[in-house]
Amino acid sequence: MRMYDVILKKRRGEELTTEEIDYFIQGFTKGEIPDYQASALLMAIFFKSMNKRETADLTMAMVNSGEQYNLDRINGIKVDKHSTGGVGDSISIVLTPMVAALGVPVAKMSGRGLGHTGGTIDKLEAFNGFSVELTEEEFIKNVNNIGIAIAGQTTDLAPADKKLYALRDVTATVDNMSLIASSIMSKKIASGADGIVLDVKVGEGAFMKTPEDARALAREMVDIGKHVGRETVAVISDMDQPLGFAIGNSLEIIEAIETLKGNGPKDLLELALTIGSNMLMIAKKAYNIEEGKKLLLETIENGKAIEKLKEFVKAQGGDPNMIDDLDLFPKAKYKLEVKSKRAGFISKIHAERVGIIAMELGAGRATKDSVIDLSVGIVLGKKRGEEVKEGEVLATVYANSKEKGERAVEKLLQEIVISDSYIETIPLIYEIIK
Amino acid sequence: MRMYDVILKKRRGEELTTEEIDYFIQGFTKGEIPDYQASALLMAIFFKSMNKRETADLTMAMVNSGEQYNLDRINGIKVDKHSTGGVGDSISIVLTPMVAALGVPVAKMSGRGLGHTGGTIDKLEAFNGFSVELTEEEFIKNVNNIGIAIAGQTTDLAPADKKLYALRDVTATVDNMSLIASSIMSKKIASGADGIVLDVKVGEGAFMKTPEDARALAREMVDIGKHVGRETVAVISDMDQPLGFAIGNSLEIIEAIETLKGNGPKDLLELALTIGSNMLMIAKKAYNIEEGKKLLLETIENGKAIEKLKEFVKAQGGDPNMIDDLDLFPKAKYKLEVKSKRAGFISKIHAERVGIIAMELGAGRATKDSVIDLSVGIVLGKKRGEEVKEGEVLATVYANSKEKGERAVEKLLQEIVISDSYIETIPLIYEIIK
Repeated sequence: MRMYDVILKKRRGEELTTEEIDYFIQGFTKGEIPDYQASALLMAIFFKSMNKRETADLTMAMVNSGEQYNLDRINGIKVDKHSTGGVGDSISIVLTPMVAALGVPVAKMSGRGLGHTGGTIDKLEAFNGFSVELTEEEFIKNVNNIGIAIAGQTTDLAPADKKLYALRDVTATVDNMSLIASSIMSKKIASGADGIVLDVKVGEGAFMKTPEDARALAREMVDIGKHVGRETVAVISDMDQPLGFAIGNSLEIIEAIETLKGNGPKDLLELALTIGSNMLMIAKKAYNIEEGKKLLLETIENGKAIEKLKEFVKAQGGDPNMIDDLDLFPKAKYKLEVKSKRAGFISKIHAERVGIIAMELGAGRATKDSVIDLSVGIVLGKKRGEEVKEGEVLATVYANSKEKGERAVEKLLQEIVISDSYIETIPLIYEIIK
Repeated sequence: MRMYDVILKKRRGEELTTEEIDYFIQGFTKGEIPDYQASALLMAIFFKSMNKRETADLTMAMVNSGEQYNLDRINGIKVDKHSTGGVGDSISIVLTPMVAALGVPVAKMSGRGLGHTGGTIDKLEAFNGFSVELTEEEFIKNVNNIGIAIAGQTTDLAPADKKLYALRDVTATVDNMSLIASSIMSKKIASGADGIVLDVKVGEGAFMKTPEDARALAREMVDIGKHVGRETVAVISDMDQPLGFAIGNSLEIIEAIETLKGNGPKDLLELALTIGSNMLMIAKKAYNIEEGKKLLLETIENGKAIEKLKEFVKAQGGDPNMIDDLDLFPKAKYKLEVKSKRAGFISKIHAERVGIIAMELGAGRATKDSVIDLSVGIVLGKKRGEEVKEGEVLATVYANSKEKGERAVEKLLQEIVISDSYIETIPLIYEIIK
């Protein structure tokens, strides 16, 4: 087989065989196929696309390019959850104690974030002493004993994807549905879960800017799951404004704790219930969404979810007392209020730009080597559609530099738009694709 | 400027600016832009193409990537000729003495051939003592004194094209009209001629298989010439069967000499007259094709062309006596006849396959390092459309190995097709594009 012929075939719009896709991914991973041939193929794929079979084959070729987690020693149906990424998204921290409390094992490998705030494992480090470095033994033991373990990725999952993504990133071949879907799914499948619930974000603060694109990506990923025998469901949710009120690491952990105590933001809870009930259904713990939501809400009402969170934090070396005493979380030096210059209705909260403001405060990594400041961030006072009076607090900025804090206040005044009237047209949940 | 943005722009089908094309070619030539970004751009160009302005800019960027010949010290209007390559094509050797005899200076840089037979400079080496290695001084002096010099390329003309072509060759991005046209034209323009006549071959033995493709390529190249101020004309000619009768190096030289003596094949003469008269028109030595052809034919009739050839051969160290005594040319040991198995009409002579048979006899280079055998080759007995009797000679094979010769005879019997009837539909000259 020659890579030249594979490129030519795809360039002509023909379907690549499983063997051709394997040949490409194996050769590329080993460095036998040079980057310049890989990028030519990627551009041909961009223009001629791949069908469902090819996309599934590409995914599995990438899964097979490295090690895979074996979760067989964990009892029950393991269901993973993945978000395509947004601003203020602490869903995983709300969700996992609830589903674990209902007997669904949560065995989650997570990466560190690069962007507005840290990833889930960065956020969890806001608990004093919390460690994401677990041996395989500890990991399996914790899931079997208490129902949850969340660890940093130690193994090089889907190395082909990593290498391919780096190439796509510099050759303008990122935004192709098959390539995006196979990239996400290869890592999830290699992580070893039996089922996967995807949270596909849509809107200005998400990678997918339109509902059509989000639907296409969701459909691609669900089809990959079907093709390879992993039950996969995608929830398409709004990311035109930040999720919940908090954007920042300890700020989001506090918000997640409040949600598990029954005092959380409506949107954060509703999305957690939707994703969670789909996880329960895959795990055969609920028949439908309504039953799932009812079960999940009960774990908040009867305190089982917050207890599960404490067990989980303790098991990974964190201080569970912080859950009862939120003052123990890292605190920023300065707290500045963003006050509305006028009365009206909030018609837009630019999710991405608000996320960047949080990153500039220190909540996220601009580069791989940046150090995250766990204490800083933004807490919105109001959400889209709410009425606001002149002088009312639109948001609070938490900063460790007064100058940075003041700059954030100025910028937030631009990004929270107030109009004379507002009619809500954006749903929280667009659709569930299975 | 970032290469990423240039790729993305072309991927979106937008027009690249002159600055963007220069940035790409300069950076790529220097090795600052990596191959994987270049190949992604090439594939995007394949799908989204380039307009005339972009193609001309790409050509000039490649011209400017290296040195250029300066022919200012040569008197008169310098007209170059280029063929896109075929089988049995000794046009340059027929043509140059004729036009030089009419006062059009021929200052030709030529590469060595890779394929069925050698290139023009390989063929010329069939003259004992002939050298293509001339200093710049000798080159200019010869053109000014006798009207012709043909030298091997010493300078690295259009190095960007060389590097780009090598990349296209392994990334399935060769067959794009803009890229093919700019590749050819960059070398011709860097060679310094004032005007260029292109012989675009079409048919099974040519790179362009259909008249449509040949026309598109011709149009592309003529437009580049116009854009950059070099008068360019393209003659589209048949390469579905070999040109003339001879395929091989000394065999083709002998055929060219015979043609200049007035005993050449009709098609070879007619094409030489057509290309030549266009050269004369660019050089302001003829008003139209008819006048040009008449003037060229006169150089054969009055012996001036054959005299010019002798002067030229002598000036470059070759033995001009060989022109009078053709027996002095390198001779193959074995001479085998291909006899027709049946009577009928020749309906097809597979040009490319016949060329490969000649190459296998040793007439051409299979790889860069192959050594050409100047004496071997094939001389056809008949051309397409001619009637043939059973047992009549279809071709003569000249070989230095009996085994190779016999194999060639066997193969030629397959490639010269005889039918009960034949109606000619393929013209020698399809069209002249200016």
